[in-house]
Amino acid sequence: MAGSIFGSIFRVSTWGESHGRGVGVVIDGCPAGVELCEEDIQSYLDRRKPGQNKYATPRKEEDMVEILSGVFEGKTTGTPIAMIVYNRTQRSGDYREIAQFYRPGHADFTFDRKYGFRDYRGGGRSSGRETIARVAAGAVAAKVLQYLGVSVYAYTLSIGEIRCERGEIRLEECKENALYMPNKEKAKKAEEYLDSMMKEQNSVGGVIEGKVLGIPAGIGEPVFEKLDANLAKAIFSIGAVKGFEIGEGFSAAESIGSDNNDSFFYDEWGKIKKETNHAGGILGGISDGDEIIFRAGIKPTPSIGKRQHTVNKSGENIEVSIKGRHDPVIVPRAVVVVECMAAITILDMMLVGMTSTLEGIQRFYEKKLK
Amino acid sequence: MAGSIFGSIFRVSTWGESHGRGVGVVIDGCPAGVELCEEDIQSYLDRRKPGQNKYATPRKEEDMVEILSGVFEGKTTGTPIAMIVYNRTQRSGDYREIAQFYRPGHADFTFDRKYGFRDYRGGGRSSGRETIARVAAGAVAAKVLQYLGVSVYAYTLSIGEIRCERGEIRLEECKENALYMPNKEKAKKAEEYLDSMMKEQNSVGGVIEGKVLGIPAGIGEPVFEKLDANLAKAIFSIGAVKGFEIGEGFSAAESIGSDNNDSFFYDEWGKIKKETNHAGGILGGISDGDEIIFRAGIKPTPSIGKRQHTVNKSGENIEVSIKGRHDPVIVPRAVVVVECMAAITILDMMLVGMTSTLEGIQRFYEKKLK
Amino acid sequence: MAGSIFGSIFRVSTWGESHGRGVGVVIDGCPAGVELCEEDIQSYLDRRKPGQNKYATPRKEEDMVEILSGVFEGKTTGTPIAMIVYNRTQRSGDYREIAQFYRPGHADFTFDRKYGFRDYRGGGRSSGRETIARVAAGAVAAKVLQYLGVSVYAYTLSIGEIRCERGEIRLEECKENALYMPNKEKAKKAEEYLDSMMKEQNSVGGVIEGKVLGIPAGIGEPVFEKLDANLAKAIFSIGAVKGFEIGEGFSAAESIGSDNNDSFFYDEWGKIKKETNHAGGILGGISDGDEIIFRAGIKPTPSIGKRQHTVNKSGENIEVSIKGRHDPVIVPRAVVVVECMAAITILDMMLVGMTSTLEGIQRFYEKKLK
Amino acid sequence: MAGSIFGSIFRVSTWGESHGRGVGVVIDGCPAGVELCEEDIQSYLDRRKPGQNKYATPRKEEDMVEILSGVFEGKTTGTPIAMIVYNRTQRSGDYREIAQFYRPGHADFTFDRKYGFRDYRGGGRSSGRETIARVAAGAVAAKVLQYLGVSVYAYTLSIGEIRCERGEIRLEECKENALYMPNKEKAKKAEEYLDSMMKEQNSVGGVIEGKVLGIPAGIGEPVFEKLDANLAKAIFSIGAVKGFEIGEGFSAAESIGSDNNDSFFYDEWGKIKKETNHAGGILGGISDGDEIIFRAGIKPTPSIGKRQHTVNKSGENIEVSIKGRHDPVIVPRAVVVVECMAAITILDMMLVGMTSTLEGIQRFYEKKLK
Repeated sequence: MAGSIFGSIFRVSTWGESHGRGVGVVIDGCPAGVELCEEDIQSYLDRRKPGQNKYATPRKEEDMVEILSGVFEGKTTGTPIAMIVYNRTQRSGDYREIAQFYRPGHADFTFDRKYGFRDYRGGGRSSGRETIARVAAGAVAAKVLQYLGVSVYAYTLSIGEIRCERGEIRLEECKENALYMPNKEKAKKAEEYLDSMMKEQNSVGGVIEGKVLGIPAGIGEPVFEKLDANLAKAIFSIGAVKGFEIGEGFSAAESIGSDNNDSFFYDEWGKIKKETNHAGGILGGISDGDEIIFRAGIKPTPSIGKRQHTVNKSGENIEVSIKGRHDPVIVPRAVVVVECMAAITILDMMLVGMTSTLEGIQRFYEKKLK
Repeated sequence: MAGSIFGSIFRVSTWGESHGRGVGVVIDGCPAGVELCEEDIQSYLDRRKPGQNKYATPRKEEDMVEILSGVFEGKTTGTPIAMIVYNRTQRSGDYREIAQFYRPGHADFTFDRKYGFRDYRGGGRSSGRETIARVAAGAVAAKVLQYLGVSVYAYTLSIGEIRCERGEIRLEECKENALYMPNKEKAKKAEEYLDSMMKEQNSVGGVIEGKVLGIPAGIGEPVFEKLDANLAKAIFSIGAVKGFEIGEGFSAAESIGSDNNDSFFYDEWGKIKKETNHAGGILGGISDGDEIIFRAGIKPTPSIGKRQHTVNKSGENIEVSIKGRHDPVIVPRAVVVVECMAAITILDMMLVGMTSTLEGIQRFYEKKLK
Repeated sequence: MAGSIFGSIFRVSTWGESHGRGVGVVIDGCPAGVELCEEDIQSYLDRRKPGQNKYATPRKEEDMVEILSGVFEGKTTGTPIAMIVYNRTQRSGDYREIAQFYRPGHADFTFDRKYGFRDYRGGGRSSGRETIARVAAGAVAAKVLQYLGVSVYAYTLSIGEIRCERGEIRLEECKENALYMPNKEKAKKAEEYLDSMMKEQNSVGGVIEGKVLGIPAGIGEPVFEKLDANLAKAIFSIGAVKGFEIGEGFSAAESIGSDNNDSFFYDEWGKIKKETNHAGGILGGISDGDEIIFRAGIKPTPSIGKRQHTVNKSGENIEVSIKGRHDPVIVPRAVVVVECMAAITILDMMLVGMTSTLEGIQRFYEKKLK
Repeated sequence: MAGSIFGSIFRVSTWGESHGRGVGVVIDGCPAGVELCEEDIQSYLDRRKPGQNKYATPRKEEDMVEILSGVFEGKTTGTPIAMIVYNRTQRSGDYREIAQFYRPGHADFTFDRKYGFRDYRGGGRSSGRETIARVAAGAVAAKVLQYLGVSVYAYTLSIGEIRCERGEIRLEECKENALYMPNKEKAKKAEEYLDSMMKEQNSVGGVIEGKVLGIPAGIGEPVFEKLDANLAKAIFSIGAVKGFEIGEGFSAAESIGSDNNDSFFYDEWGKIKKETNHAGGILGGISDGDEIIFRAGIKPTPSIGKRQHTVNKSGENIEVSIKGRHDPVIVPRAVVVVECMAAITILDMMLVGMTSTLEGIQRFYEKKLK
């Protein structure tokens, strides 16, 4: 089925393999009138680019985006926005060998079982390069959200067991370290940990935390299209994500009602607020006007140099060591991908949310209210 | 938008409020030829019925299901299956008071913000009674899966901090305790904990673990329609769920590659197996033929007798105590809801998965393979 | 697959068979705040009721609708509206015989081929009673459209070869004749023709014309979700429809550009208008603000008393005469079904159309325009 | 909304404007294992290429397709197939003038009303060049259908009032004339008629007839997803189509039941056949195993040299003559577009139709039938 299309109204359709001609995306349903240029997209893509520090693959990839349609005289036209990032290197020679065996922790085996064969060059469609298309689409979503007063951001909350605790988060420190961690001391410890793992040709996982600011109350649809349910799907669709939580998340499961409930109160301007935000900004699947907070648990990069057991296609149990340089941790590069999937989801649900009341529809169509 | 419809091919459309005429579901896309009767559904509904033990609301609800269409001479016809459970009691008098304030932890506030007003009787559409429709649909999905050799089950993994550890799970013990916990000693401790919380008019959360057995490798679609992404959405769409994980889940984020990767090997019959199952049966969003394992973190019931701060509609900060008897924990009753949402998702993805290869389609249409 | 669900935002899910427990519909995505009661629906259902004149089946069917959810204190809540019409008579005895053969012109054969068996009682799901659910949903759509200043109506344009020509249409005459024809002289001729066909135990077809008034310009999405494409699907999904056209329709195919193009001009108030409306109110798939005009060609009722050749399940070629009293023409009763499917489509596209421009979205969310 | 995506399982997402960088398509949901190369697509694209005869625009457009993803070692991988056709010429100078007025019969006015502005270069997204993407996708669908024994073809049935009658259709003659008409005498007459219209700087319409051979019985879903309803939408989504009919179409509306019903009989091999095919191969929205026959009515090309009234953006009523050479008839070039949209629809419905029965699903998953 069409597994590469996401969204209800702001609809994103991605394509491309790691070692094919390129990767790309078509956004259908972006509203008309948004100022948009390639630089808006490129600045997001640059954040997921490999080779920026020693924890990321040093392969030379330029990943320059081209907008092919949907923008005229500097503005979106309301029709599909196609974007492409050509793959600069398509050397498939290096990958002949992995065609013969199944890498542990990768989708090689399951793709073969599903499709009968696979594009084995660098993971093909299951490669991390697929996220380029998500980031390009997310950059557009973020631009539209900006016009609506909504912003989405994320950071590395933990690497292995080194975690920034609640009081330790200082966003401005994210850009001062290679790990995009909001605390430089913790970042330093995490770097030491990573160095030790790299020596062992091993890899580590971590947790990304994301926030949405400025979203109005009332976004999200009851029952199946809850805002948190759609965020869960969006984030879980990113390769390597193994867990997702909103607000207190799994900690809420160990909590008691009187602690976990957020009390309402009227603030000094007569606006309804919550004393706490254990809910993470969503009640009954609908935004409550508070900051949305969520976390994604990311597994260690499966490609490691350390020797592992696996099988080849000749029916043999073998030992392999995955060659090439691979990120010992993908968490820092995945931060922008998480942001982008969240932005796409939030925008889509805000568009969906415009039809909830007759009064809103009448106002839109400038009909007298009856 | 249409928030009450779920699924791509096996499509479930639910309706109903806690204190309206009833709740119901229409399943569109159930294959023809499945033997189905009301008893198949009722046995699932009975598992979520309240009033079965002292931890569940003692309200008398019979919740008898009627099949209104889609079954002829004992078999599904392939056309929509409509099912209804009438609400026996529709006393709305008790609920007039809560119309005036916003219960902490509930969707009262967000529904008002979204729709301008709400059906305040017992939570209306955001009530737990909405899950009756999910369970009715899930019972049908489970029946179809049974014919395909697939089974889905779940249990209470933890209540508050009392958790069954990996070696302690004995499924047969689930039915021997009121909490549907797979370990009677832990169940006893959890009951003591619950009793103490009930005395305080408080409530607790917990974790539900689910498993899928017998699912073939190759189910799930790459990129956005990953099997785990769809499970995440399905489970997160259940009210009170605040976290979801697959396999090792958030623990994987603290792990290292060499530990977290599952090695492949050929078993004695030449079949490819994994030495471990940290992945939880899904690689790259596609089932690997192993058992699927997932967990849902459930928050404490928000309705508590203990006094809480909140606001009323007259602009006042007030204190409230939620009256009526409410479950001090919803985890045990939510187990069957989790099972049912998983069953619907798995079946839907198996139907979707029939079109992955030309060879499979040709075989289906009995065309000679070229 | 889910063939019984229609619409993108205003989503309609129907169920039920002619001789099962009843037929019904769930509308998911109806905006909150619409005043709605059963009488609003019933007045539409009464228009498709059989037995109102000698050209319609005299079976006693009451078709009383009940609203089961989604309305609270007289207004829609924004959550699913479930409606049911119970079948009063479920005598299946009369239909045992037709279980054994395939009625010409009916779906008996194709249902058997598709599903392996069928609910043979009165056509089951392929019966005309299925349209009750469409009409109930359409009545709600029409009510919402009324608040937006849009109205949809239809009438019998022709019965057999007796057709109301353009200058002969006088809407007020529709209700003065049993055929819902907008010209009493033509209606009289058509009645004489029908009488002669009834004597022969034969049936006739006809054409329904529909119009949409008050729809703003700009509704409809380019390329695949054109307003006319969606209307075509909606109307063609009604059983017995064999043709659909917009504006000049097939006549345009015999026309020349200078005749068929509609010239634009500024009217005395400076508004852009068209001199003619050959386009039928839609240009490039998008409404142009003019009246939308469309026609549906309806085949003769396939159930006729006259002897016909067919096959039975025992492998024999046989002759049959369809018993029971059947409408010699379904056109007059189908008028309201056509109206309702058009109303659902127009409303859905108007809701979809709210997200076309950034400016509109900003205005909706009351953000300052940048 | 996402108006540029079509299909349920075989899902086509198109993009591009007539004078932008290019046009393209992403097919998501094409099964794996289909042999596919650019030549398969190119041969279809060449059939819609302009400049092939004097009735088509002589602009030099090469329209060379490139496959960017989804094909590996000569076979489809099951992941998205992206295809692009770059626009060779992007001279927008010629189009500055039409930015200032609304061409009669075009979407200029409605795009402006919908989006606030438009890409006025050659019609932008509403240009006929958009159909390149449909044809590229349709070529893939036709290739898959070929493996399933199904073929789709179409031809010019009429130009203006010159129509090939039923007995006059000789397919082999289509390629012998510039109009793709299946009768050379009629083609000659039509050419004379076209020549006279060209002299007047006018244009004409026509009818395209399409057929589907080899489709098994049982394809199409009851109620809203009828096979004919989806074909109607598919064909009506092509610009300039104003009418659609199946089988006898509008003629059925003038017919009587005993003439219009198709009698069933057992043929000499014991197979159930129909004596006639007035239904056009579809009963109750489901294919009956017979040839599917449909027709599309196409309006005259709206771009004509002859002077027309219209309005400009400065508030003036003006006279215009559309410059440049435009096809005096688009029917012959639209034939392949009709074929392609039909192929996409038929394939999609065949994939959807694989899940209709439990028996079929069990057989697919090789489970023992119970």
